[in-house]
Amino acid sequence: MNRIKMVIEYDGSRYHGFQIQANAHTIQAEIEAALQRLTGRPINITSAGRTDSGVHAAGQVIAFTSDATIPAEKWSAALNSFLPPDIRVLTSEAAAANFHPRYDALSKNYAYLLYRQQQGATFMRNYAWCNSEKLDIAAMEAACGFFIGTHNFKSFCASGSSVKNYERQVKSCVLHYREPYLNLEICADGFLYNMVRIIMGTLVEVGRGNYQPADVAGIIAAQNRQAAGITAPAQGLYLLRVDYPA
Amino acid sequence: MNRIKMVIEYDGSRYHGFQIQANAHTIQAEIEAALQRLTGRPINITSAGRTDSGVHAAGQVIAFTSDATIPAEKWSAALNSFLPPDIRVLTSEAAAANFHPRYDALSKNYAYLLYRQQQGATFMRNYAWCNSEKLDIAAMEAACGFFIGTHNFKSFCASGSSVKNYERQVKSCVLHYREPYLNLEICADGFLYNMVRIIMGTLVEVGRGNYQPADVAGIIAAQNRQAAGITAPAQGLYLLRVDYPA
Repeated sequence: MNRIKMVIEYDGSRYHGFQIQANAHTIQAEIEAALQRLTGRPINITSAGRTDSGVHAAGQVIAFTSDATIPAEKWSAALNSFLPPDIRVLTSEAAAANFHPRYDALSKNYAYLLYRQQQGATFMRNYAWCNSEKLDIAAMEAACGFFIGTHNFKSFCASGSSVKNYERQVKSCVLHYREPYLNLEICADGFLYNMVRIIMGTLVEVGRGNYQPADVAGIIAAQNRQAAGITAPAQGLYLLRVDYPA
Repeated sequence: MNRIKMVIEYDGSRYHGFQIQANAHTIQAEIEAALQRLTGRPINITSAGRTDSGVHAAGQVIAFTSDATIPAEKWSAALNSFLPPDIRVLTSEAAAANFHPRYDALSKNYAYLLYRQQQGATFMRNYAWCNSEKLDIAAMEAACGFFIGTHNFKSFCASGSSVKNYERQVKSCVLHYREPYLNLEICADGFLYNMVRIIMGTLVEVGRGNYQPADVAGIIAAQNRQAAGITAPAQGLYLLRVDYPA
């Protein structure tokens, strides 16, 4: 049996998220169906993390085990011919027999994209939060620094989540601004449910002047979802990259 | 009666082109249906030019006449609330009673976008020609100059077109390269059917080395579609702007 690791890219617009579920169109279901068509056998995949409905991936990582005699690096082209055009395998490689995309990950990187003008927004409606309101970008940049470090991020977790440990280490949190794009890149050892979208929603509220940058420290300390800002819409979120030990 | 001019933006991916036709989903049909829902009366629109299936517009111009008592600049927001999210009115203004978006145009500007890498192509598949082959960009830039001027462009017109006069004045033709985007911007007093797509297809063949830049002069002189290159796919083409007398 061969363990295969793949990096995949997908446009989440048409899907009810990554995870397979009854009567819903999901990324996982498409990939498993394509693997079955390719190999003639049912294959279960595991991923580095679920993504919600409308959320995209530029570097999701999946793994599966197969006895098919396809060389590891040929899997990507082989599987792409069975996948729809909005799901693409970027690379495939051999992995250790016990490789697990989620448990073995050192860190995950997400991007959240804002599109800051009316012109062109028609083309970005599924790929960014189209938001042309006036925002204090410098204040948003200053606020980013308060997220970095190891904190209890319960304020930035969707209420109703059943997780037990809310502590996460944010390794970097940077805003890149090149008109008309404002792009948040955030790296952490893991993320709570809706964490990036609530961080972005809170940053936008900082940009509106509803919070001062330093208020972020207090919002984190509150450990209460009500203390933080809105949840930014799904379509601006991208799972960018998953890092593993070298 | 009021004559209204609108600048509109649309994502052509879901449509069978601009022009209304029986049993097909078109931009014109959507706009006319929205105008009827807004005003309660049937309204015919005229446009600066048809666009084909899958082709986009960042600055299409339309006009229509209505007795509705909506201030000219309020039409854009009013109509947007009746339009699908992939068709947006950018601006609306009062126009002369005899304003015609096509006959009054001084020039039209098109863009043709190439996306030059595999990574991210999933998100660009409907919005660019995703083409990561090796191309000689400098040769393509040199070739652009040969299109400028007043020429008979029959070689760059889809065969079967019923037009009588193939002469057009290309006012500018420039390639902008910022990795991974290669964007052609071309301005002319008018365009033949598929003209921009055949020019882009020919430029790509120059980039491949199938033609030298100076060969473009001979291709134009041939006045024969067979002499020119391939027709670039529809999804990279954008009607960018239409210019009128001040």
